[in-house]
Amino acid sequence: MQHETLESALKLLLGERLFLDTASRISYGYDGSFGQYVPEFVTQPLSTKEVQEIVKLANRFNEPIYPRGAGTNLSGGALPVHGGIVIDFSQWDEVTIYPNDLIIKTRPGVKTSTIHALAEAHQLMYPPDPSSSAVCTIGGNLAENAGGPHGVKYGVTKDYVIGLEVVTAQGELIRTGGQTIKNVTGYDLTKLLVGSEGTLGIITEATLRLIPKPKATQTAMIVFKDLESAGRSISQILTSGVRPSKMEILDHHAINKVVDYAGLDLPRAAAAILLVEVDGEPDALTKEMETIRVALEKIGVEHIEIAKTKEQEAELWRVRKAVSPAVVESGYTKISEDATVPLSKIPHMFKKISELKHKYQLSIVVFGHAGDGNLHPTINANMRDKTAIQNVEQAVEEIFNYAIELGGTLSGEHGIGTMKKAFMTRELGTEGVAFQKAIKQALDPDNVLNPGKIFPAEGETRLVLHND
Amino acid sequence: MQHETLESALKLLLGERLFLDTASRISYGYDGSFGQYVPEFVTQPLSTKEVQEIVKLANRFNEPIYPRGAGTNLSGGALPVHGGIVIDFSQWDEVTIYPNDLIIKTRPGVKTSTIHALAEAHQLMYPPDPSSSAVCTIGGNLAENAGGPHGVKYGVTKDYVIGLEVVTAQGELIRTGGQTIKNVTGYDLTKLLVGSEGTLGIITEATLRLIPKPKATQTAMIVFKDLESAGRSISQILTSGVRPSKMEILDHHAINKVVDYAGLDLPRAAAAILLVEVDGEPDALTKEMETIRVALEKIGVEHIEIAKTKEQEAELWRVRKAVSPAVVESGYTKISEDATVPLSKIPHMFKKISELKHKYQLSIVVFGHAGDGNLHPTINANMRDKTAIQNVEQAVEEIFNYAIELGGTLSGEHGIGTMKKAFMTRELGTEGVAFQKAIKQALDPDNVLNPGKIFPAEGETRLVLHND
Repeated sequence: MQHETLESALKLLLGERLFLDTASRISYGYDGSFGQYVPEFVTQPLSTKEVQEIVKLANRFNEPIYPRGAGTNLSGGALPVHGGIVIDFSQWDEVTIYPNDLIIKTRPGVKTSTIHALAEAHQLMYPPDPSSSAVCTIGGNLAENAGGPHGVKYGVTKDYVIGLEVVTAQGELIRTGGQTIKNVTGYDLTKLLVGSEGTLGIITEATLRLIPKPKATQTAMIVFKDLESAGRSISQILTSGVRPSKMEILDHHAINKVVDYAGLDLPRAAAAILLVEVDGEPDALTKEMETIRVALEKIGVEHIEIAKTKEQEAELWRVRKAVSPAVVESGYTKISEDATVPLSKIPHMFKKISELKHKYQLSIVVFGHAGDGNLHPTINANMRDKTAIQNVEQAVEEIFNYAIELGGTLSGEHGIGTMKKAFMTRELGTEGVAFQKAIKQALDPDNVLNPGKIFPAEGETRLVLHND
Repeated sequence: MQHETLESALKLLLGERLFLDTASRISYGYDGSFGQYVPEFVTQPLSTKEVQEIVKLANRFNEPIYPRGAGTNLSGGALPVHGGIVIDFSQWDEVTIYPNDLIIKTRPGVKTSTIHALAEAHQLMYPPDPSSSAVCTIGGNLAENAGGPHGVKYGVTKDYVIGLEVVTAQGELIRTGGQTIKNVTGYDLTKLLVGSEGTLGIITEATLRLIPKPKATQTAMIVFKDLESAGRSISQILTSGVRPSKMEILDHHAINKVVDYAGLDLPRAAAAILLVEVDGEPDALTKEMETIRVALEKIGVEHIEIAKTKEQEAELWRVRKAVSPAVVESGYTKISEDATVPLSKIPHMFKKISELKHKYQLSIVVFGHAGDGNLHPTINANMRDKTAIQNVEQAVEEIFNYAIELGGTLSGEHGIGTMKKAFMTRELGTEGVAFQKAIKQALDPDNVLNPGKIFPAEGETRLVLHND
């Protein structure tokens, strides 16, 4: 009876943009992580007013809300774990650039790649660039604070958000920040909401800052015989006076997967390779590469290949882009982690992962954003094999614990979602989690917005990948 | 009776680091803004444990707490407006650099200039650089999210804080963030607490990230005949493919004050000058300046002088540093504002301020961080003259309103404190202020931490500079 009333109210509000059939509902029940849930309603609002109305209805009928972009996220942020109402933002894709103010205003459904293209058409740049940028939406990037290879020089999504329009858990409309890069008027709700995984408010518009697009780039591949020197090279480069725009690492196993999958020409025997990009004034780049070469020579690293043409450079970045598909291609399910450690601890993490590989008999490749300490140990396992699943769960748990022990974090860029919430207390302590919960409680006392994420359930302390 | 018990408890805890005499208490009653208040107790803790104990005592005896650094702030953030306990952090100055992790760990009393020097000794850089950096403390910078001229390329204090140790309003200890640049584990309390003006928690340790120090800098002075072309030049430069590391503007009046005060060689007749610094690989800088020159030529701006020697460059930056002392030197009291507008609106704000100058018969110079839209209209007035004070109050109020109308903000880098709280609702709306208050209420329900700041009192809607 109550269900019918909510249904008719949503129908009245959204018409054809409300989906109730089982096939539609099932197709909104998963994301790039694990688990499958079925929401009761799938909605596609196209205005702030409609979002406000949906939230007010959700409050009235006591239904949870699950905002969603393209569903590419890797930590369960978009999963409708308690059913309820999915808000699919993918169709709401208005976007405007203001080149003289160096800003873009965007609705949540705009693809990240659209924002990149729009900025570049005006000699500007929007640096955050998650691997999924061709398909993912800015709304999802905002919810999860997406990163990408530009992080080492240019930071992550949050660093480019200067203002938000937000629908609160009660359906009220607020604006945070504004159109200026600097703003210290009251609390920084913009940076609190970006990365809060849709649990504190629903972002309906964002103002993004852009930066001047560098004139040129140059890329080098550095080849290592052992992981220790690869690790040492990262700090060595970053203290040489050059600021690389990308610094990506692939371990031995990642290198070989890529060679097998894409037939790219890489040193199969290397312990690791580091891809380093510098950007800026064209003539400076060769000098910067020379500075890097000299700095590395001092610690005995000598094998550096600098791309001589744009084609060679593109080829090197194809290597990095090929890692993920190569892992998927090689069979079974990909479990992609993003534990992040202080720069000097990268070799320790490499060593630990190598041990876990043997201990749990797992296929693990390691690659990631070396300049941020943000590694992606990526496991490939048969998720129909119960023993394999348990091994994966235990290995991932050991990676989390070790990252925390090294002074790092559970998640560098994928978010907590459902995947990592069991470990929140280990990193933040009871008081730390209580402080975070106090904010959630204050802003969403009825737990309407994306419930079941970030905070562990009572007694939840283990990673569970299977969905029994 | 109760007072004596709190006094004896503080005495027992701090010994000689508790100050009760009137002279000491009065000297902790002001900051760089307006108003004078007298706290009951001045404390100088030197450990987290001591801070926790002070907060617990404050809770028990229902006394407000006012954390304080060097007291240089310009918006009243350090004023003990309700008396109570001042926590003077200036003596707690432990600091350690970890060059291989590119981080510094610092207690709140460390001077910002000490952090600069420590980073530079390792070829690293900590970019935030408020004018007061020789005397101000990092604790104050963290509380207010201090900026400076590097903002246009390198951002502000918040962009360099990756982890905090915080004593909560209840005296509990929490840690936020960590030692990694990337961290999306739960809500971003680090960026919420930095800039919250000591109202949500007391920062007892911060982990700051450092970046590679650029090898060289080059500076140019661009001279304008009218303010419109100065305004247009800002966007023009920022879309030329070059990313300046500083972009500071001085209007006609600021130029002339500096010439009178410091005898520096500047074009007295100019409507404005823009100081533009680029940094990076030495050979690239001349090319970058050429790119800027060509871009400006296209819009008819041709008067560019590039510093040929390090001495000439230093001389140009002495110009910028001389503005504030020049304004103070010229008599009366300095009222320094920091309303910030979108880049394309800088000429509008210049025009408005020029009108206000005549309307209220005030001495106003304008300078500031052009690349951020962050202007510092600075008024010089006799604060013993009631009419002058009222004129200042009205002019400042018009500046605030116009900044908001232009899509800008009340405060780009000075903070709200006591000075701007009357205007919070104008910028954020009732719902926006309520959202912020909900966070304050959740984390500090008894209003123990820095009460009387940020949020307007019931019915408070006007700026009041005099302290009747």
